[in-house]
Amino acid sequence: MSSSPLIDLRNLKFLLSQVFHFDEMFEWPAFAAQDAGMARQSIELAHQLAVERFLPHRQLADKQEPCVVNAKVRIPVEVGEALREYSDAGFMSMAVSAEDGGLGLPYALALICDGLFFGANISTTGYALLTRGAANLIATHGTDAQKQQYLPGLTSGRWFGTMCLSEPQAGSSLADIRTRAVLMDDGRYKLSGAKMWISGGEHEMAENIVHLVLAKIAGGPAGVKGISLFIVPRYRADANGQYCEANDVALAGLNHKLGQRGIVNTFLKFGERDDCVGELVGAPHQGLAQMFHMMNEARIGVGLSAIMQGYGGYLYSLNYARERKQGRHPDQRDPASAPLPLIAHADVRRMLLQQRAYVEGAYALALYAALLVDAKAHAPDSQRRLDAGSVLDLLTPIVKAWSADWTLKANELAIQILGGYGYTREYPVEQYYRDNRLNPIHEGANGIQALDLLGRKLGADGGRAYALLDAHMGASASEALLIEPLAGLGAQLNEYRTALAASLHAAQSGMAGGKLRETLANATPFASAFGHIVVAWMWLRQAIAAQRQLSRATQSDPAFLEGKIQTAKFFFAQELPAARHWLDLTARSDDSAFSMRDEWF
Amino acid sequence: MSSSPLIDLRNLKFLLSQVFHFDEMFEWPAFAAQDAGMARQSIELAHQLAVERFLPHRQLADKQEPCVVNAKVRIPVEVGEALREYSDAGFMSMAVSAEDGGLGLPYALALICDGLFFGANISTTGYALLTRGAANLIATHGTDAQKQQYLPGLTSGRWFGTMCLSEPQAGSSLADIRTRAVLMDDGRYKLSGAKMWISGGEHEMAENIVHLVLAKIAGGPAGVKGISLFIVPRYRADANGQYCEANDVALAGLNHKLGQRGIVNTFLKFGERDDCVGELVGAPHQGLAQMFHMMNEARIGVGLSAIMQGYGGYLYSLNYARERKQGRHPDQRDPASAPLPLIAHADVRRMLLQQRAYVEGAYALALYAALLVDAKAHAPDSQRRLDAGSVLDLLTPIVKAWSADWTLKANELAIQILGGYGYTREYPVEQYYRDNRLNPIHEGANGIQALDLLGRKLGADGGRAYALLDAHMGASASEALLIEPLAGLGAQLNEYRTALAASLHAAQSGMAGGKLRETLANATPFASAFGHIVVAWMWLRQAIAAQRQLSRATQSDPAFLEGKIQTAKFFFAQELPAARHWLDLTARSDDSAFSMRDEWF
Repeated sequence: MSSSPLIDLRNLKFLLSQVFHFDEMFEWPAFAAQDAGMARQSIELAHQLAVERFLPHRQLADKQEPCVVNAKVRIPVEVGEALREYSDAGFMSMAVSAEDGGLGLPYALALICDGLFFGANISTTGYALLTRGAANLIATHGTDAQKQQYLPGLTSGRWFGTMCLSEPQAGSSLADIRTRAVLMDDGRYKLSGAKMWISGGEHEMAENIVHLVLAKIAGGPAGVKGISLFIVPRYRADANGQYCEANDVALAGLNHKLGQRGIVNTFLKFGERDDCVGELVGAPHQGLAQMFHMMNEARIGVGLSAIMQGYGGYLYSLNYARERKQGRHPDQRDPASAPLPLIAHADVRRMLLQQRAYVEGAYALALYAALLVDAKAHAPDSQRRLDAGSVLDLLTPIVKAWSADWTLKANELAIQILGGYGYTREYPVEQYYRDNRLNPIHEGANGIQALDLLGRKLGADGGRAYALLDAHMGASASEALLIEPLAGLGAQLNEYRTALAASLHAAQSGMAGGKLRETLANATPFASAFGHIVVAWMWLRQAIAAQRQLSRATQSDPAFLEGKIQTAKFFFAQELPAARHWLDLTARSDDSAFSMRDEWF
Repeated sequence: MSSSPLIDLRNLKFLLSQVFHFDEMFEWPAFAAQDAGMARQSIELAHQLAVERFLPHRQLADKQEPCVVNAKVRIPVEVGEALREYSDAGFMSMAVSAEDGGLGLPYALALICDGLFFGANISTTGYALLTRGAANLIATHGTDAQKQQYLPGLTSGRWFGTMCLSEPQAGSSLADIRTRAVLMDDGRYKLSGAKMWISGGEHEMAENIVHLVLAKIAGGPAGVKGISLFIVPRYRADANGQYCEANDVALAGLNHKLGQRGIVNTFLKFGERDDCVGELVGAPHQGLAQMFHMMNEARIGVGLSAIMQGYGGYLYSLNYARERKQGRHPDQRDPASAPLPLIAHADVRRMLLQQRAYVEGAYALALYAALLVDAKAHAPDSQRRLDAGSVLDLLTPIVKAWSADWTLKANELAIQILGGYGYTREYPVEQYYRDNRLNPIHEGANGIQALDLLGRKLGADGGRAYALLDAHMGASASEALLIEPLAGLGAQLNEYRTALAASLHAAQSGMAGGKLRETLANATPFASAFGHIVVAWMWLRQAIAAQRQLSRATQSDPAFLEGKIQTAKFFFAQELPAARHWLDLTARSDDSAFSMRDEWF
């Protein structure tokens, strides 16, 4: 692998070996059967498959979006073919534990591979990740019988999975779902209701579709405490164990989206003929907790999918800026002189640096979060497991929301660099922009992530997670203070840590004093600031690692390392200072949005 | 007119009567034949036509984008029908002077009407404004014979016009165009070359298409000093004066865009059969100056078109937020309580205020700029004409670039408020977002507007324009200081005026000291700051006018006026402070983008 349209492979290698010391994991008992070499091979295989089988139909599947023909959903054949190759190569089962029939690879490794597929084709990858999510849920919460019944189909990719949460009247507010489940004599449930925004909800690419459905058991508690989780297969087993009995799940319509058009998005009706049968997963009324177990990892996945759209746009616009010649320097008016490549213009370099700073900063953070997922589950030291879980909890909304917001900005800049060409569908950057626009919306809208961060996670457990994270950031800052070229960045991170702590303290005092709504009115700017500071920390860690490498005689690619350091400087100089104003809004509990009244609009 | 999907009509009335005293113009001799009542009627007529004839096919023309059938461009019939009604109602000629066969209405009035059409349907309106632009160019620079030949067709809407500037290899850099013109014996020219991104370049909606083409006369100076302007009709007159001799202009392809799909965008080849004949407009080598005369007004138009996309999205999402019920307050966990309308959530109000602040702030600025266009041309006092021209020159890049950047952000927020629904093509907000994404690119990319502002316009004429603008801003600040509820805003504007002056001084010293490239590397953040400050001034003027109204006993709509003041406060509290960091980058000539090297990426 030398160059890639998906990711800067030098960056991936640098993060794994120089910044995060990825191979350490393979010394843990949980991964005794794995080794670092196999991990590298999995990444290479994923990259090859992504470039050769997922990328080529990215634009095609966008253009020929799913449609209903003779009551069946038609999807370009390339999508199903790519997914079969994906399953055959073992990716459908890579993160499922060995005892449940999977490969039991580290989550971080799976996430790196996912990222490559996301970058190549976010829509086709969506089918795979929904299926893996369904398999993980059943593996974690299902009975042995359910595992035996559903996992082989899902992990082999013969069956696909979906997640059915939202309803037409309840998107962000799951407390208000209306789908109902009634216990049948045989212990199964009859379901009835409507589910909206169901990706992969109906198609002919798999022998079966296993819907995981949130519904309320009649007589259960109101709100989220009365939500249960059900397995609802499109085809259920008949008396002979053949899956050819059609369940009562009807396609009520397709949603036609701005982007991510390659993955069919459906409106489904359950039980219109009173014959939709599902199986309860785990105990009644535990549905939300079960789903959230998976949702947290899904949020990291959404963040990463956003990042990889940003990465693709960044690399494409970088290449374009090197090749396309246009204009001259402002002090170089001679029209006979040759036009310059776009990258020679400082404003274009600014737009490239901005993209790189967002994309590679967020990528480092997502990878760090993924490593925390593994450490939380498998680190030999119990304190480390606990700590990893705490910090992970805090970072998850940032990986999701910050990445989605700022890599969308990166996609906007990629279009800008290409100019008129970037605005056409003949070039790939506008599709990244359209595809990425969903990411601030789904898996918990970004505004809700911000409320969750400031209103719940930062205060949880006496602020323990925040104290841990802040200590980690402080350690990096201290390290940088001892490295002359980076001392200024270390000092700057410390300044922002202090400002963050002050702003958080003010917010928490406000909330404790009964001003919950007023304080949370500034949750979004606060979360942006928090994200900027955490990402600055990621850039500082990268700069430290790069500077260490540079000071050795044997480093092989000094230009790459210089670029890392310069991008870190750029982020600290041009991006991080924006956080000051956002923190200030929270600190002084600015009420300009809170005090606005409906009738004043 | 009570409510409108295009604009808050109370706002338009408020700006015209309370903020800008629009009617004053009708006392000028140039508009002696007009009156304020007629102006109001024109606006009402435009609004009605926009809503009834332009809006209904907005989504249709996006979906059924132009295609080539049997070598002809096919466009939905609704587009041509709407444009005929537009011409029949007199809008095609409204800003052309009476002596050239137009209505001679004030530019500001024309712009208000344009805005209504832009908001209803940016693509269909594009055909009209290109035609008007062509007519204005010929009216201003053409010979009497050319006026007689081309104006009647264009102003009546039987003929359409285009602007042919860009070429495949030269978008932002017109110095490098290659289209050539060779003098023929009869005084006309033969043209040859290729033109890219030509909106309205080929279709069957008009009897003729009049291309205005930039080309270089063989033997002329290199670069922009050798550019001339030509009239190249699709059909030229034969010996009998019949326009049925096909000129050698060939459709080489259609560009398929992210948005603005309803207006056909073409790649044209001139003179492939050596039979493309054009007429020179004015003197040789004056093409760029002639075009820029029109381009400056076109830039205001582009800014306004962006604003109106923002306005449509804002109003739609406001209405949605009032009707859609979802979620509860963070301290209100009882699931049995009724869900709240979205607008009850402070974070949603923030997103609405942000949209309103960008959209109505930019709208006020565009209207102010339009009034300067009229004052520059027609104010009775010569000093006022001169001053208006100076300030207009400075504000034009802001009206174009700032509006395009921030109303795109507004469109992003409108989608966010609608959530999953906003991401579908069943709702109108995603189309605003796609349509608007072109505006930072065309008519001079925003990065180039920033270079022009900092590198040229702010220093022109010893900084006279800036001094005038700053004095205007200072006067409003002083006024606010005397009005108790607004004194804080007045003081804050003064602070930012000071910071702006310091930053500008540092930049100009840098440039004078030979650091032109280094300084201009931060032109974009500087222009964003400049825009934020100017828009803050517009909000202050609106707040002052609203506060005055409120203090009277007879004001009719206090809620609207309170909303104006609250939005001004929101802009000062949540948006304006971002300018501080951008000014700081310029003041200390941050070199993080400038120092980045190509090989470090």
